[in-house]
Amino acid sequence: MGFQADPRLSLNQACLKRQNLANALRAGVDGGLPAIGLWREPVAEIGLAKAAAMLARSGLRLSTLCRGGFFTAYEGDQRRWAIDDNRRAIDETATLAAAGAAGSRAVLVLVAGGLPEGSRDLAGARGRVRQALEELAPFAQAAGVTLAVEPLHPMFAADRAVVSTLKQALDLADGFPPEVVGVVIDTFHVWWDPQVLEQISRAGGEGRIASYQVCDWKTPLPADVLASRHYPGDGVVDFHLLTRAVSRAGYKGDIEVELFNEDIWADEPGNVVNRVVSSFGESVSPHLGRS
Amino acid sequence: MGFQADPRLSLNQACLKRQNLANALRAGVDGGLPAIGLWREPVAEIGLAKAAAMLARSGLRLSTLCRGGFFTAYEGDQRRWAIDDNRRAIDETATLAAAGAAGSRAVLVLVAGGLPEGSRDLAGARGRVRQALEELAPFAQAAGVTLAVEPLHPMFAADRAVVSTLKQALDLADGFPPEVVGVVIDTFHVWWDPQVLEQISRAGGEGRIASYQVCDWKTPLPADVLASRHYPGDGVVDFHLLTRAVSRAGYKGDIEVELFNEDIWADEPGNVVNRVVSSFGESVSPHLGRS
Repeated sequence: MGFQADPRLSLNQACLKRQNLANALRAGVDGGLPAIGLWREPVAEIGLAKAAAMLARSGLRLSTLCRGGFFTAYEGDQRRWAIDDNRRAIDETATLAAAGAAGSRAVLVLVAGGLPEGSRDLAGARGRVRQALEELAPFAQAAGVTLAVEPLHPMFAADRAVVSTLKQALDLADGFPPEVVGVVIDTFHVWWDPQVLEQISRAGGEGRIASYQVCDWKTPLPADVLASRHYPGDGVVDFHLLTRAVSRAGYKGDIEVELFNEDIWADEPGNVVNRVVSSFGESVSPHLGRS
Repeated sequence: MGFQADPRLSLNQACLKRQNLANALRAGVDGGLPAIGLWREPVAEIGLAKAAAMLARSGLRLSTLCRGGFFTAYEGDQRRWAIDDNRRAIDETATLAAAGAAGSRAVLVLVAGGLPEGSRDLAGARGRVRQALEELAPFAQAAGVTLAVEPLHPMFAADRAVVSTLKQALDLADGFPPEVVGVVIDTFHVWWDPQVLEQISRAGGEGRIASYQVCDWKTPLPADVLASRHYPGDGVVDFHLLTRAVSRAGYKGDIEVELFNEDIWADEPGNVVNRVVSSFGESVSPHLGRS
């Protein structure tokens, strides 16, 4: 027996990290998924124009492009490069969203970046994230792209993202139009947060939920904590609680399963997609509260 | 050249995990430290009465006893055992604090415990922590012992401590007299928290800072994330910012260096104590703002 893919399920391409874009699109289509979240590197590998054409032919919606960000460097060449690179990422997002099937969303996922080498100044790094958003917002707005700030689990605060909680991401977004700066809610990163329910509600009220991503947390963590994401249902995340909160907050968009996991990356793409579909059907779909 | 040990520096016994109590006390005395934070297991190894006599002879102050807690189990035998064990830990804390040198503090560090096997109900587990405190508070008060709730880094939320932030620990302590239920501020666990400064200030205002523990965060994390604590100054923690905040909040007690690290555990005890003394002198002492 098999699950039919949920009509809101999107395959984040990270699940198939070892596959090129063609294979990832095919796996999504073959699995009956309606949408996909793409990554910049495999898009760049064959070129944006070709990638957009392939996405169009696939018939899949684009849910997000991953990812921009990494703009915590001090002012200088590295920071200028990062800002320019984010402008390119904004353009890529717009191009791909226009190529995707109806209902595609032009959402660029942003990971803030960690502390610069040798720095201990978290507040300063967080301030530079805000400055980068201010600098990029006009380009995003002109391109019709939403910059989606993703808080990452605090275990990544030093080396990957100085934005660690949903509250902090929303505080950073404060003052920007919600269609220009939103947030990503990823269960892996926020499940532990005592304030997560009130902040999900706030995010919905402000119209800032740009993406909802699901995967599970399970211990012991592997040696590489980055690759410790599991299929929904395989760990301790309460998908009932979080999914209902996101639904009640008014989010009606696609929901990505995004997995970083060596065992999953070593698995056959068809198997991975089947597990994505079935685990989503079991652990997430029942809590979507369709009207 | 060598640093003189700071008059507020306490050696947490975890730094010398492979040593018995006699060796740990000797290393503290030889290093010129005025205080020590003991662990229950090495105390139990030779018996409480003997341990208390040895502590008395050492001339060291007791800063804390580590640790009680682990009371997130559902009602039943396991939970009853945990509550009883915490009552024993309260008595041990009182006995050892009475045996330590003048200025010893009867502080029992509490680690909440993780999710029960198979459970995804974080809120329920957190509620049972509050219930355990309510059950234990009268015993602690009668024994003159402070129950010190330690928020642990969110990467331990599933398997070790469902209390993940200082705000949450203070919310749990709300309504108890501050000499009965306090909090531990450990730099390793809280350094990333965007709300840490306001919550340190709150903790001071409520008179609830029962212990300040210092060690550093450094990436990449080792395979066992539990053993990823470093000497102050070896990582990214801003000891200036946090130590000044704790000082301004009115904390005047001993400050423990507590390290879990395989390399440090494999090192010679005298070397470890020397590094504890010098790293504290360099990274923490300058920010204590003595009057």
